[in-house]
Amino acid sequence: MSRTPQHLLTATQEALEAVRSTAPLVQCITNSVVVGFTANALLAVGAAPAMVDIPDEAGIFAGVASGLLINLGTCRAEQRAAALEAAPAASAAGTPWVLDPVAIGALPVRTPLAHQLRDLRPSIVRGNASEIMALAELGAGGRGVDSTNSVDDALAAARSLARASGGAVAISGATDVVTDGESVVRLSNGHPVLTKVTGGGCALGAIMAAFAAVTPDSLTAAVAATSVYTVAADLAAERSALPGSFAVALLDALSEVSVDDLAERAVIA
Amino acid sequence: MSRTPQHLLTATQEALEAVRSTAPLVQCITNSVVVGFTANALLAVGAAPAMVDIPDEAGIFAGVASGLLINLGTCRAEQRAAALEAAPAASAAGTPWVLDPVAIGALPVRTPLAHQLRDLRPSIVRGNASEIMALAELGAGGRGVDSTNSVDDALAAARSLARASGGAVAISGATDVVTDGESVVRLSNGHPVLTKVTGGGCALGAIMAAFAAVTPDSLTAAVAATSVYTVAADLAAERSALPGSFAVALLDALSEVSVDDLAERAVIA
Amino acid sequence: MSRTPQHLLTATQEALEAVRSTAPLVQCITNSVVVGFTANALLAVGAAPAMVDIPDEAGIFAGVASGLLINLGTCRAEQRAAALEAAPAASAAGTPWVLDPVAIGALPVRTPLAHQLRDLRPSIVRGNASEIMALAELGAGGRGVDSTNSVDDALAAARSLARASGGAVAISGATDVVTDGESVVRLSNGHPVLTKVTGGGCALGAIMAAFAAVTPDSLTAAVAATSVYTVAADLAAERSALPGSFAVALLDALSEVSVDDLAERAVIA
Repeated sequence: MSRTPQHLLTATQEALEAVRSTAPLVQCITNSVVVGFTANALLAVGAAPAMVDIPDEAGIFAGVASGLLINLGTCRAEQRAAALEAAPAASAAGTPWVLDPVAIGALPVRTPLAHQLRDLRPSIVRGNASEIMALAELGAGGRGVDSTNSVDDALAAARSLARASGGAVAISGATDVVTDGESVVRLSNGHPVLTKVTGGGCALGAIMAAFAAVTPDSLTAAVAATSVYTVAADLAAERSALPGSFAVALLDALSEVSVDDLAERAVIA
Repeated sequence: MSRTPQHLLTATQEALEAVRSTAPLVQCITNSVVVGFTANALLAVGAAPAMVDIPDEAGIFAGVASGLLINLGTCRAEQRAAALEAAPAASAAGTPWVLDPVAIGALPVRTPLAHQLRDLRPSIVRGNASEIMALAELGAGGRGVDSTNSVDDALAAARSLARASGGAVAISGATDVVTDGESVVRLSNGHPVLTKVTGGGCALGAIMAAFAAVTPDSLTAAVAATSVYTVAADLAAERSALPGSFAVALLDALSEVSVDDLAERAVIA
Repeated sequence: MSRTPQHLLTATQEALEAVRSTAPLVQCITNSVVVGFTANALLAVGAAPAMVDIPDEAGIFAGVASGLLINLGTCRAEQRAAALEAAPAASAAGTPWVLDPVAIGALPVRTPLAHQLRDLRPSIVRGNASEIMALAELGAGGRGVDSTNSVDDALAAARSLARASGGAVAISGATDVVTDGESVVRLSNGHPVLTKVTGGGCALGAIMAAFAAVTPDSLTAAVAATSVYTVAADLAAERSALPGSFAVALLDALSEVSVDDLAERAVIA
């Protein structure tokens, strides 16, 4: 599969149009902090959110959803059971799924759960450098949700995780890096104010699930979602770089970002 | 009771003034995605939200609240128990209550719970066409939170539910329909961007509970809440039809919408 | 310790700069309604939120966090267990912690829990007059989250609580009052629209935890957080006094409020 920047840009543009024309149904088992923003981000970009996150429903739903996000940010007991139902059901049904191992490392409930989910082979893993290293059991984790490692520190861990899962791993940072274990793609859009909006990263995990629903190749899906989201962030930051109004502008920009905006602005290498 | 459009408009105007002058205390047992937006919508329109949704408190509180919303969007075990406490307590105390059977149909936890709550005779049921049909056991439900049936498909189901409960049933759609089993009222305000804001419908359920607190007749309460909310949506969409800024403008408009706006804009038939 | 208004203003300015330069990690065990807004408010003012609120993690995290908020607004069983883990762990580690006893009084789950937490000696208690009186077992509580008592009614209760805990107690109202049992400080910034935004008060509890992380004296920390937050509210209300756009402007203002704004606007007596 060709992974030149130009091919990835074209694939990103096609994926954006496919999300908007098919409105993939994205199931989210995600944390209580960002769940509303995540649903709004999915709606804005053209997908359809469904936060079905209780046991005895999550597995059934994963069989009919177009994509699934599992985010461990505030993983209550019911959500943990729901995640362990949904991930195998998604895999069995061919539903792509994304794992976001928020703040794993030292915390003793979410960390073993993340390892268990990792071994179920997520289509895409998304995290900051410390989370990716902890998921690969190569680091001790960060400071709460903040990374204490650099993206480059985490690249070997990301490659290793991607080879084991057969999917893609995305490391968030000032430059976002996506790898499938072989290719390494770097994306340099986005704005620092994105780190001042809660759910700025978590919502991207959900959007990756939406793009994976319309893009069979996991690396391409992760790249496309990242590029659309961070180009939208660039557009939003031009309206306001203050956190409250930026978050509003980001939702607006996700609904407006066009294939031409991607052509003009996406920085993929 | 007279149900001419003119009488309903006058009743809507009176109800809006009554909500603002009495600030009804609306208990919400609702889903994690929309809970913040719902509280803000209640505050904006002039009501007082109280999200008392844990067992051993929900029933007590339903006895003192002015109105109650039960929304099944992410119904954790504690919320299910709280709902089954609160609904009978509300009925016993004469507190009007609204049931929003989000995404029922195929999902095996919420669907029987919704049927159980239906049999406790909610004052108002609010849902999309697929949800209303599934609640009446006349359909298989929709696609997640999206309806796959038309409002007209669901009208017979809504009439049947309303006759059984003695209350009103509201079917949301491009035209909203409210019935008490006999009268059928159609409301044609609102804007498509409302479907791009998570909680756009769920918040209306809470506002129906606020209006039911000041309006004894359930059909009138459901019509009044729908009219106020969708006229506010029209006002908001004139400021912005992009989803992030529209959601902000909707809260602003709920606080500003006036009896004159209703007179000029409400489309009730 | 000097508690003249001028000294408190200087301490507030220093605390704001310290929050921005050190980004204290604030653990929140808080209610589902306001959790997103609270995280955004912390980020905006310069702190780092971490909503670690599940048993077996909450206690561990409280040992490494810079500050802790326990808010009882929608206290599910897991959050209650997490709170009872985290409060002693915070105390043992010297982590300052804030208790916000939302809507206690008549409700039988949260009220005894609040009393239990009170006896663990929170650094700061924050509540409206009815909540403070109920925490001191001197009143029956308010109307849901609304106070039915005046701030002056609650001052004796607040003094008594502060003497017992060795910390500070803040009573929210049109004028906010903070006491450590001896000194009484009154702060008169803020705007009525703040009561129309859900989480308007709850987010202040989290910001108090952030300021307590950089300010050893609890009374000074509570005063500084209140002053920064309510001066930001004044700035925001100048942009809009409508609830949706005010909430957005408040986050913007929390990121922009300066030591000069405090000097010009803070009303501390």
